[in-house]
Amino acid sequence: MRLVRYGETGHEKPGLIDEENHLRDLSLEVPDFSGEGLSRHQMDRIRALDVKSLPKADPSHRIGPCVGNVGNFLAVGLNYADHARETGAAIPSEPILFNKAPSCLAGPQDELILPKGSETTDWEVEIAAVIGTPALYVSQEQALDHVAGFCLCNDVSERTYQKERGGQWVKGKSFPTFGQLGPWLVTPEELEDPQSVDLWLDVNGERMQTGSTATMIFSIANVISYASQFMRLMPGDVITTGTPPGVGMGMNPKRFLKAGDIVTLGGGRLGEQRHVVKAFED
Amino acid sequence: MRLVRYGETGHEKPGLIDEENHLRDLSLEVPDFSGEGLSRHQMDRIRALDVKSLPKADPSHRIGPCVGNVGNFLAVGLNYADHARETGAAIPSEPILFNKAPSCLAGPQDELILPKGSETTDWEVEIAAVIGTPALYVSQEQALDHVAGFCLCNDVSERTYQKERGGQWVKGKSFPTFGQLGPWLVTPEELEDPQSVDLWLDVNGERMQTGSTATMIFSIANVISYASQFMRLMPGDVITTGTPPGVGMGMNPKRFLKAGDIVTLGGGRLGEQRHVVKAFED
Repeated sequence: MRLVRYGETGHEKPGLIDEENHLRDLSLEVPDFSGEGLSRHQMDRIRALDVKSLPKADPSHRIGPCVGNVGNFLAVGLNYADHARETGAAIPSEPILFNKAPSCLAGPQDELILPKGSETTDWEVEIAAVIGTPALYVSQEQALDHVAGFCLCNDVSERTYQKERGGQWVKGKSFPTFGQLGPWLVTPEELEDPQSVDLWLDVNGERMQTGSTATMIFSIANVISYASQFMRLMPGDVITTGTPPGVGMGMNPKRFLKAGDIVTLGGGRLGEQRHVVKAFED
Repeated sequence: MRLVRYGETGHEKPGLIDEENHLRDLSLEVPDFSGEGLSRHQMDRIRALDVKSLPKADPSHRIGPCVGNVGNFLAVGLNYADHARETGAAIPSEPILFNKAPSCLAGPQDELILPKGSETTDWEVEIAAVIGTPALYVSQEQALDHVAGFCLCNDVSERTYQKERGGQWVKGKSFPTFGQLGPWLVTPEELEDPQSVDLWLDVNGERMQTGSTATMIFSIANVISYASQFMRLMPGDVITTGTPPGVGMGMNPKRFLKAGDIVTLGGGRLGEQRHVVKAFED
């Protein structure tokens, strides 16, 4: 299934995209794709529905981030060896975990807003896993059983805030619109192998990032198992798993986003995003 | 007002502690102290109630963390100069922000659970601010207008996970029960000056930490204003603002928690907590 949340910001309704690419409403079936709404039980209930009997929704609706009420937006740093090299960082010996503020979540076609005065806002195409059932001390073998689905994420990053403002990365990872998620949550049975998804990102039509989740240092199952040794992962938690090479910070000369740029990105069955870059306005 | 959430874990109801220290139920007045339930409008509504007309609740109820459905549990590192010194760290030139997973939240009398094999779990008494209205780019002068209330927080920290497992601190700050919050949320009008609260923490009756929020490097207003330059703070976000000296890591020899220890802590009008330390059990 390809599950979506559609409607105005903060008032999204659950829906799905059917095989003919029609948007269908699920708001009579599940309150939201958040928390318990992502449980195995709910997913199985939705799987059992007759899709053709679900009401069609107006396809002009905005699509929001594919998960609501996120409690923990976790991310992995430097999870592709070639990306670590381009940033000049050492290959990590265990996953680097950091947080993005959940208030940075945005939809797959929403504008990408530059913070006031920002000159070093960068892109990062990634695959994210969304937790469906609580996970504490889970093994790598069991880890994917706790996943409700996968989605595309643009882990937008203000590099000066991330690296030159004192210690932790959350400062550069959290501005509103810096967590662009979707268009849809792909349930595991539809994504044959999350470790063979091709990822790409363009700026103004020029290819910047090309990669495959096949070259991750720590697989998604590994990352989930690892994170669960330190904290209880909860339904609706989002874990975005690192970016392949081609970020602006790694170029010579460095390149960053400016107002008017168009960022497009995609990941096969995960779908595509398109963002117009805008300066922050009060 | 002293606002509480009482009942079993995950099913807490809103209430308050009245002037005679009776627990009174507020579940007919507000769904929960979370998100919009913390808005100025809701707080003003509760302030206007005749407290004596509210139903008394059984005082034997468990008290839970005083905020629910937390989206962003943010913390400040090394925010007391004397604490920075005891850990051997430099005085930060701007606030160090890091995250705790919201799933680590626990009540003021709940057990403190040691992760499997942990030998370096430490205590940190702090004052936390709870956001009541969204805040992005707010000035220091306006910052406290966005606060629904203040509460006591034990920012429990596994030092090996925090410092020796690769980069970011979230790994050592997030185990279940590591965010002990409450007993109550003190609304701003009841806390004359959040920058003159005396904080203390004992282990097995022995005084470990003594401090005052008067000696913070970055005031609570400063921290909120600062954080809001990087992210939108949302209703229900919790910002715990750093610990005074006396953590186990700073002692010579270092001291850490072991099963059977009793941790007590307090902060004047913020109330007190008491925790029995226990090893994790499957």
